Amino acid sequence: MKHKVSLAVVGSIGIDTVETPAARRPDILGGSVSFACAASSFFTGTGMVGVVGTDFPAKFMGAFRRFAIDLDGLQKVEGKTFRWSGVYEKNMNVRRTLSTDLNVFASFAPVLPPHYARSPFVFLANIAPALQLHVLDQAKRPKFVAADTMDLWINTTPKDLRKVIARVDMLLLNDSEACHLTGRAHLLDAARRLMCMGPEYVVIKKGEHGSMLVSKKGIFLAPAYPVDSVADPTGAGDSFAGGLMGWLAKAGRVDEKTVRTAMLYGSVMGSFCVEAFSLDRFLRLKRPEVERRFKNLLGMTSVS
Amino acid sequence: MKHKVSLAVVGSIGIDTVETPAARRPDILGGSVSFACAASSFFTGTGMVGVVGTDFPAKFMGAFRRFAIDLDGLQKVEGKTFRWSGVYEKNMNVRRTLSTDLNVFASFAPVLPPHYARSPFVFLANIAPALQLHVLDQAKRPKFVAADTMDLWINTTPKDLRKVIARVDMLLLNDSEACHLTGRAHLLDAARRLMCMGPEYVVIKKGEHGSMLVSKKGIFLAPAYPVDSVADPTGAGDSFAGGLMGWLAKAGRVDEKTVRTAMLYGSVMGSFCVEAFSLDRFLRLKRPEVERRFKNLLGMTSVS
Repeated sequence: MKHKVSLAVVGSIGIDTVETPAARRPDILGGSVSFACAASSFFTGTGMVGVVGTDFPAKFMGAFRRFAIDLDGLQKVEGKTFRWSGVYEKNMNVRRTLSTDLNVFASFAPVLPPHYARSPFVFLANIAPALQLHVLDQAKRPKFVAADTMDLWINTTPKDLRKVIARVDMLLLNDSEACHLTGRAHLLDAARRLMCMGPEYVVIKKGEHGSMLVSKKGIFLAPAYPVDSVADPTGAGDSFAGGLMGWLAKAGRVDEKTVRTAMLYGSVMGSFCVEAFSLDRFLRLKRPEVERRFKNLLGMTSVS
Repeated sequence: MKHKVSLAVVGSIGIDTVETPAARRPDILGGSVSFACAASSFFTGTGMVGVVGTDFPAKFMGAFRRFAIDLDGLQKVEGKTFRWSGVYEKNMNVRRTLSTDLNVFASFAPVLPPHYARSPFVFLANIAPALQLHVLDQAKRPKFVAADTMDLWINTTPKDLRKVIARVDMLLLNDSEACHLTGRAHLLDAARRLMCMGPEYVVIKKGEHGSMLVSKKGIFLAPAYPVDSVADPTGAGDSFAGGLMGWLAKAGRVDEKTVRTAMLYGSVMGSFCVEAFSLDRFLRLKRPEVERRFKNLLGMTSVS
């Protein structure tokens, strides 16, 4: 079955080996576009742009299919899939990368299939800024473009990253990254500085401490949804962003209220992500559970 | 002029020497009861219970008087005032205590003046649990009692602390302390465990990341009010608690909506506290500024 693609997402697909205080899991499905698309697929027709190698397990393809993600933008090429391994400390805010093997990503040229190119919403999930730009060049007058990034690109390809930032409507990044990129010590300062670089919306992600939206309309503080236990934080930020963009694409409009609502849906999707390794929690997630957490979260942030 | 005391507060009064990335300030007014009463005084008639030595500067007494705090419960005794010194790292979440001199606190026996003893609201700010109990024993059927605590008492006087917790309606403590005290790794777990120990309301303070209220009615997530710059975080938690209890005492009732509103006023008072050293920001704070931040904070947490 073909789905109308209202959100096109580019990013990484990886085979991860993750160790958390809960367990160690070798060779599990990961990558920014995997989490973002899985989360987004609960809201809207989502098209994935990415690359895997010939070693990519059939069961991982099967997982993607179970989310009804459009996979026409997923290339399978000769070589090995991107691999990442990392360890979380007891305080799961602290993560150490053990190894990164770019493999097929080293020569990846993302292509937007024709039916993605007119997608009104585009999300450039975390990946090299040059690849994000390459996708953006192929999008036909999108209504709204958001980009996520990470420390690595701030350090290694700052010029490309600045080009991305200049061209997107929304930039998402971590608190420490926002300060690092702008050279400002205070988050609000950093967020305002980032707005001057292009995006109308800046979303600062603070992990378990929630997120902050800064726009000309003011500040919105979205808490993380409190969960009983965390199995693996990997992909929480990507799932947050995927939920946010999926909700926006579903709504089909971008105004302050819709963006704020989308932030809360992002929190909800991030909270499901961390409850299991890989995409496991999403694979057994039912849409009514999403709505239940959203309602709960609204209640947890309302005075009455 | 005498004020009706609707909130009695006991805690420490100190002469602090504080170093932050912003500056180093020797011999400034500090202590949990100082911050809590200053914050509370913006809302309700507040009576202070504490002790200072004969070296306590007249200008510090003058500062207390400018807040129209009832000082009948403030003892001045032979000896030196309690002293504390500490250093904040660049990341101001991390603080090192350099020295603590109990001085007159070593032999302090707090006394509730008669017109405090019938105060409907009592706040046991951070101080030795034995002293908190001593004050609680003198209170005549208070309507609502809250206690704050810290790691030191969890480590040194856990039995007394448990007695306090069993007798109060609300317990306030930091996230790490909640986990430490209960031996639980997850905040929600820890909060529910603490509720089993007595209090109907548990407030977990997370510094710049806000606070969480857990009660039988559910969870409320109060963000910290985002400030442009932080001069000194000392006293932020005490000011948060003082604002919260001051608002409750002003309202004169305790229900979920009032407690949630009080949490937001607590956030607002904490945000003013950190903008300057000691009580300096409170000394130039005008009540309309409090209302403005409260309204802003409501706006920052509302979807529409």
